Amino acid sequence: MEIEEIVRQLLNLLETKQYQQLRQVTEDMQPADLAEALEKMDQQNRLLVFRLMKKDVAAEAFAWMGQEARGEMIENFSDAELTAALEEMALDDAADILEEMPASVVKRVLARSSKKTRESLNRLLNYPADSAGSIMTPEYIRLRKEMTVAQALDVIRREGENSETVYTLYVTERNKLLGVVSARDLLLAGPDQTMEELMDDNVISVQVTDDKEEVAKELNRYGFIAMPVVDSEGMLVGIVTVDDATDVLIEEATEDFEQMAAMQPNEDGYFATSVWKQACNRLPWLLVLMLSATFTGMILTHYEEAFAVMPLLVSFIPMLMDTGGNCGNQSSTLMIRGMALGEIEPRDVLRVVWKEFRVALIVGVVLAIVNGARIWIMYGDPKIAILIALTLLAAVVIAKLIGCMLPLGVQKVGLDPAIIASPFITTLVDACVITVYFSIAVQMFATLRG
Amino acid sequence: MEIEEIVRQLLNLLETKQYQQLRQVTEDMQPADLAEALEKMDQQNRLLVFRLMKKDVAAEAFAWMGQEARGEMIENFSDAELTAALEEMALDDAADILEEMPASVVKRVLARSSKKTRESLNRLLNYPADSAGSIMTPEYIRLRKEMTVAQALDVIRREGENSETVYTLYVTERNKLLGVVSARDLLLAGPDQTMEELMDDNVISVQVTDDKEEVAKELNRYGFIAMPVVDSEGMLVGIVTVDDATDVLIEEATEDFEQMAAMQPNEDGYFATSVWKQACNRLPWLLVLMLSATFTGMILTHYEEAFAVMPLLVSFIPMLMDTGGNCGNQSSTLMIRGMALGEIEPRDVLRVVWKEFRVALIVGVVLAIVNGARIWIMYGDPKIAILIALTLLAAVVIAKLIGCMLPLGVQKVGLDPAIIASPFITTLVDACVITVYFSIAVQMFATLRG
Repeated sequence: MEIEEIVRQLLNLLETKQYQQLRQVTEDMQPADLAEALEKMDQQNRLLVFRLMKKDVAAEAFAWMGQEARGEMIENFSDAELTAALEEMALDDAADILEEMPASVVKRVLARSSKKTRESLNRLLNYPADSAGSIMTPEYIRLRKEMTVAQALDVIRREGENSETVYTLYVTERNKLLGVVSARDLLLAGPDQTMEELMDDNVISVQVTDDKEEVAKELNRYGFIAMPVVDSEGMLVGIVTVDDATDVLIEEATEDFEQMAAMQPNEDGYFATSVWKQACNRLPWLLVLMLSATFTGMILTHYEEAFAVMPLLVSFIPMLMDTGGNCGNQSSTLMIRGMALGEIEPRDVLRVVWKEFRVALIVGVVLAIVNGARIWIMYGDPKIAILIALTLLAAVVIAKLIGCMLPLGVQKVGLDPAIIASPFITTLVDACVITVYFSIAVQMFATLRG
Repeated sequence: MEIEEIVRQLLNLLETKQYQQLRQVTEDMQPADLAEALEKMDQQNRLLVFRLMKKDVAAEAFAWMGQEARGEMIENFSDAELTAALEEMALDDAADILEEMPASVVKRVLARSSKKTRESLNRLLNYPADSAGSIMTPEYIRLRKEMTVAQALDVIRREGENSETVYTLYVTERNKLLGVVSARDLLLAGPDQTMEELMDDNVISVQVTDDKEEVAKELNRYGFIAMPVVDSEGMLVGIVTVDDATDVLIEEATEDFEQMAAMQPNEDGYFATSVWKQACNRLPWLLVLMLSATFTGMILTHYEEAFAVMPLLVSFIPMLMDTGGNCGNQSSTLMIRGMALGEIEPRDVLRVVWKEFRVALIVGVVLAIVNGARIWIMYGDPKIAILIALTLLAAVVIAKLIGCMLPLGVQKVGLDPAIIASPFITTLVDACVITVYFSIAVQMFATLRG
């Protein structure tokens, strides 16, 4: 609603040529709102509004825009325009945007940038995509340990404009991280206290090569506003701020969702990904799972005679397979999410198996009774009812045990349980359920034994 | 690793009776680390260490502990002890902990609390569990618009200790929210500037009754450190801070994972939930899906004669059902996650359907060729190969279309797509796939037309 109003307001100002007014209203808007409004305009108006805004306002809105709309704008930018926008931006945002662009454009843009920006960007672009280095910013405030509160406040006043945060400050000596001071400490302290007295020298920091997901989890675990990033020699090289960490946590959850649904994870948004790319992300697991389901088919072939004699048996296969699959998924989802949140660890395996076993017994007995009764009433045949009830109970127990043990085992050997375990559980459970079903059937019905 | 060291250190200090030392080292530790170390101790030692720590250190560690360990401690607390701990805590944490406790304990604890704490806690406990009110804290800093920067800094010094954040400050007049000032603005401004000059009066705020998930998303969208919460008259009643908002986002992702795996969402951790509760969370959907799979079984019964004549047909059922289910899940997962992140909206339905249709054609053709070729080679029967290939292509297209349209439709009518759409997709797809399979088979093989 509100965004649409902003769009109308901006377009109206544009049409009536009130450019000064447009410049003013955009300055008071939240960058996130402005970015969303720009996304909703057609390309031409978007560029016009963008060019009329104050440079820093435009640059910030640009950084907040979605990848799709940003890509469209970049196509229409001159190199000079893109460089100017990137110079105005926070360095970590600029690096993120450059990462999306073709190497040739990056080269041209960097060549036009100021020396300082170029060096910082080059450094950021060189860190591996999943590392703390790739999400950190080198724009933070550094203090010396002998500084007083008054001196520190002066530094903040001088450098605050260009820092990602002024709320966590870092005390360094020849770049070595000695301690952390919060703006809160400064505000609550007297003007003559020194940084050495105020700082917390029991510093929590991460390595620049650490996995960004681990870094985000640590930051969230401690409730920090920013986490310092050091290199292998303990030199402070940047900070990761809470907003970027939250984005990483959301991204990682999305990746897990995609992997658990048998897809390759995809960092770009749904619409920003081409049809070909989407197909390629989905095909590998579908192929693997399709071919591995052949195995279940082969088990069925083995019992061809049984269902030639008693075709009714076939009609229960979908229900048994689906129930088994659903039970397995429930358990594996709880495991995978529990491990992602650090709540369940591979060493908890016995505790988990025992718990899942008991849950499976309750669930299995209830399902067996309900469906057994239904079948008895519908078909009037107690033997079939017992066959289905027994199979259901076994299916639930097997599915829950596979569902909890497979992810824990996969994690134990150092692989990602979301990728490996989730898609395979249905296939494994299917094969087991079919085998159990026909084994019991053959035992119960003498006519099925050739 | 590090946590285990902390545990060893604390237990060692406890054994050697160096209580003063224990008091000191715990004061320097991060509350999150201390809480984890306490969780790893047995109950007796945990209580001993807890009682030896400084009161505020102990209270903060207690607030950071997991629900399971906290519950064990509360059982051993006297009412006086629990009340003292809650008094030391941030009010929103105290309210969260009280929410987990039986009503009788809450009553006793509140009766023992100071009047001010009791009133605040009572107010927080009365907001609905999913509202902004339930995650906000009333501990923030209020300024008046005529205050100068110097005066504002004085207020921060005076009230900062008891505020959740000193980084976002709220300018109010008779409790009405007029504007927001950041500590950054204060630090960068001259001492004589007034709040009226500095404040941003274009305030983004949320209603106390707003859904906490929406509030967390808004806060994250704007990159705020805190979001002000107002009541229906625009009076400021509290703030939601970024750490609590991130927790809500993580919780909501967990809920979606659970719902998409056909479970009732569960706010407590895996181990903190009893076996009975776990079974109850999983049973309803399993029952519904089990009974609805009967429908697929009835379709199969309809074709009993076909597979009595050609039992080989049955062996492809698991592969076709699984592939259809996997394809449907891929699409529905992308939709549900895309909608949760605000990237896809119900009005995008045509764009989405067109995209999914093209993806489905590519994926379907590849799967059909691969499996068709495999079957032709394995069975030497081109007719069966063509039957399976055609069914696969149709299955993929149907599954992807159901997978994208159902979640969008469910969202459109105002229901939660994670709950309704996800579990039903497999059942729906199964029924369609089986129908298509046998329809084509009956067309192709004259012998099946009894």
